[in-house]
Amino acid sequence: EAVKQLLALKAQYKGLTGEDPPQQAIKKAPKRSAKEKAAAGGFQLKTPKGMRDYDPQHMAIRERVFETIKTVFKRHGAVTIETPVMELKETLTGKYGEDSKLIYDVADQGGEVLALRYDLTVPFARYVAQNKVDNIKRYHIARVYRRDQPAMTKGRYREFYQCDIDIAGVYADMVPDAECVRIVHEILSDLNFDEFVVKVNHRKLLDGIFEVCGCPPEKFRTICSAVDKLDKEPWDAVRKEMTVDKGLPEAAADKIGEYVLMSGGLDLVAKLKQDQALYSNAMAKEGIDSMEKMLRFCELYGVLDKVSFDLSLARGLDYYTGVIYEAILTGAAVGSVAGGGRYDNLVGMFDAKGRKVPCVGVSIGVERLFSIMEAREGAETRRTQTEVYVISAQKGLLEERMKICRELWDAGVRTETSYKANSKTVTDFQLCEKEGIPLAIIIGGDEIERKVVTIRDISTRNETKDVPRSEMVTYVKRMLIAPRSNASSPSKTSSV
Amino acid sequence: EAVKQLLALKAQYKGLTGEDPPQQAIKKAPKRSAKEKAAAGGFQLKTPKGMRDYDPQHMAIRERVFETIKTVFKRHGAVTIETPVMELKETLTGKYGEDSKLIYDVADQGGEVLALRYDLTVPFARYVAQNKVDNIKRYHIARVYRRDQPAMTKGRYREFYQCDIDIAGVYADMVPDAECVRIVHEILSDLNFDEFVVKVNHRKLLDGIFEVCGCPPEKFRTICSAVDKLDKEPWDAVRKEMTVDKGLPEAAADKIGEYVLMSGGLDLVAKLKQDQALYSNAMAKEGIDSMEKMLRFCELYGVLDKVSFDLSLARGLDYYTGVIYEAILTGAAVGSVAGGGRYDNLVGMFDAKGRKVPCVGVSIGVERLFSIMEAREGAETRRTQTEVYVISAQKGLLEERMKICRELWDAGVRTETSYKANSKTVTDFQLCEKEGIPLAIIIGGDEIERKVVTIRDISTRNETKDVPRSEMVTYVKRMLIAPRSNASSPSKTSSV
Repeated sequence: EAVKQLLALKAQYKGLTGEDPPQQAIKKAPKRSAKEKAAAGGFQLKTPKGMRDYDPQHMAIRERVFETIKTVFKRHGAVTIETPVMELKETLTGKYGEDSKLIYDVADQGGEVLALRYDLTVPFARYVAQNKVDNIKRYHIARVYRRDQPAMTKGRYREFYQCDIDIAGVYADMVPDAECVRIVHEILSDLNFDEFVVKVNHRKLLDGIFEVCGCPPEKFRTICSAVDKLDKEPWDAVRKEMTVDKGLPEAAADKIGEYVLMSGGLDLVAKLKQDQALYSNAMAKEGIDSMEKMLRFCELYGVLDKVSFDLSLARGLDYYTGVIYEAILTGAAVGSVAGGGRYDNLVGMFDAKGRKVPCVGVSIGVERLFSIMEAREGAETRRTQTEVYVISAQKGLLEERMKICRELWDAGVRTETSYKANSKTVTDFQLCEKEGIPLAIIIGGDEIERKVVTIRDISTRNETKDVPRSEMVTYVKRMLIAPRSNASSPSKTSSV
Repeated sequence: EAVKQLLALKAQYKGLTGEDPPQQAIKKAPKRSAKEKAAAGGFQLKTPKGMRDYDPQHMAIRERVFETIKTVFKRHGAVTIETPVMELKETLTGKYGEDSKLIYDVADQGGEVLALRYDLTVPFARYVAQNKVDNIKRYHIARVYRRDQPAMTKGRYREFYQCDIDIAGVYADMVPDAECVRIVHEILSDLNFDEFVVKVNHRKLLDGIFEVCGCPPEKFRTICSAVDKLDKEPWDAVRKEMTVDKGLPEAAADKIGEYVLMSGGLDLVAKLKQDQALYSNAMAKEGIDSMEKMLRFCELYGVLDKVSFDLSLARGLDYYTGVIYEAILTGAAVGSVAGGGRYDNLVGMFDAKGRKVPCVGVSIGVERLFSIMEAREGAETRRTQTEVYVISAQKGLLEERMKICRELWDAGVRTETSYKANSKTVTDFQLCEKEGIPLAIIIGGDEIERKVVTIRDISTRNETKDVPRSEMVTYVKRMLIAPRSNASSPSKTSSV
């Protein structure tokens, strides 16, 4: 269902590829006329190309997703750090290969040469090296910047969130690596995605395969990056890239082709162990033995059912040195929703003495998850968490409404009232319904005189009359805890 | 006590003014040697000038402060939005006066001319205008960028958080304005700051005073900016600025001087109303009448005891049109910790048809609050929220520890175990004490055979032995809820 909605949404925006994305992807289409774009003084009223505002509806979903993810990270004892949005340009240089051209430079206004961060991994490695950290399990949720061609249909913006957890330190083989899979599993499950696969593979196994198949070592990384395209292109195209473009002998390519189409679980480990040509290769053996441990630990952690040991998984980045991961939602054509791997040498690149700190980590593709969740529940999501709206049944009672707000705020109850001197009762009720506010407190001159209030359950329209003012807070708190009869979706009634 | 610590801290860094700030302000002084700065390949290992990393200890405090503030904002029904970290340069042009030179420009790499946001107010006004919003109560917590001379002793960085709430819409006079004071009051109280004053004043009253005292209208803003310095400079210096630098007649300056030294509460309103020269001035009257309402509403909201109607409060920014605020911690020499006011014309500057949306808002000076809280409790703050640490009393039990972790994670309990194959029991206990983890689960071969565990309360060292494995989760959850006898500070034991 979610997938269907997403596909409809995607089709709807099909025409917009490469264009500035609309301001509000879901509810309201942008209504900017040419005149507005020109605006007062011939001046453009817009966000930068490839960037957008997020309105309260979007933000409510985003905050909920972030909270869910943070809860998982904290369940695993992770800490968080914050690094500047800018780094010295030289910190980023030589880390991203040809994607370096996508880095946003800060103007030289005298002083250091700076650029905006391209991801959170390089700043993390810089932090670990600079602060001489030996071990840390840290998460970091923040925006990164890439001067890519924006494409709304692909959810590709120039400013977007990354949501990373990395475990640095010298530890038992595959223990933190398997925990990363468990973390991805918990996050996707807690966000109510039930159909997903976490693909895993090992860079050393890939290198071993390349070696055994006759690929020269200097071509390992470039052939690896060809394999990485197997999720988007058929084998024939990848084979052509390997042989025609990258000069690999055809026989080598064909042998590699046999391996990289394999996937499975512990059965695949057994099969590879019996492949004497492969298992006698030192790198391949190390990779296979580690993958065996990895799958065993995934079993211990109760997540093996969602794990696929997939030899076609290669990952684009050069710096991975061990296990690599990628999670995809099965059935949803949204690409990967998590990815990562082990990178044992990156911190060493920043250390004066080349001190290495082995790291493994995974990045959650939150922007893709947001898109799906927005399509799934956008209009249903409450924008506020207001619990009580104070309404007067007649004019001139602004100050009385304000007094009631004060009492409820003092008691920690999330409360609003109209800022208008004389708000219409019917308008106020409509607002409560639209915003999903569960309770209204209603007063009139008579109630004030008798020191009572009426409390209305907005969804059932049941009214509790003559609640003594002195017991109002108690009543409200009790009613907010009690499950309401025709409570709608959890997101509508949740008061947390 | 907090203030004392802060002052000590400040003195400690006295020598560093204008220098790059140290990486970690509180616990560990930076240990970067010249050799490290030069680093591998003559390459600098540092953050940009005036920017810094925040380590897990800092982040734990920051996250708690943000949570407290967000809780208050949500109690008042506020929504949140997000805008890009960059704006078109022209969006920022002409909004910040001479401070415009502090704006960070993004390099021109082909395309639009962009700059980093300087505050959150201008992007908010742009958002309201662009999306044709009529009314919104929004908060926004995000970092802004200023190429200012960094000064650690003043806590002044080039990248820092702002934390704003603004209420836009056509509403009854002073109702949202008074709620802003209530919000500041709640935030400071909820953060356990008890000694503070919220100064309030009104731009129209100031303009009325200037007019009545003989200041020509074209000098209103520049004289206002001179008055703004009264919190840092004596009257004589301000008088000199008005007369010698800004050409105000001495008689006018002296008359202004009499007014701007006044402060009080409703008594001051009464006094100003009796001042016939002043109260017959249309602007002054409007300001005085509004301030009377403001103070009355503050009384209704139970915050009048912390409010000071202070005629010397002027605020630096040109765009304020009504009430202005500033909160200071009395006794702490940290400057203002919140500030804001009404700005009814800013949105109109962005609208093609000049459509105005009146706004009032307040910005919490979170960076200053962080500094005080870090000094107050830095080392006491837990970095993680881990509830259980799994320990084996003998070697070779890694997989058993992992299984227990899985059971606890499945039950939502925040759990860690050592990633080492054979971690030393004593090291693990020390870690629990250092990190403030409340419970440890201990297993040995004997326990595994008998399907039981030992649960240890880290703070009391009491052990509950022979807990059946099947009841482990129940026991743990019960023990986490129960108040522990010698529980230390709330931040140490809180498990939320």
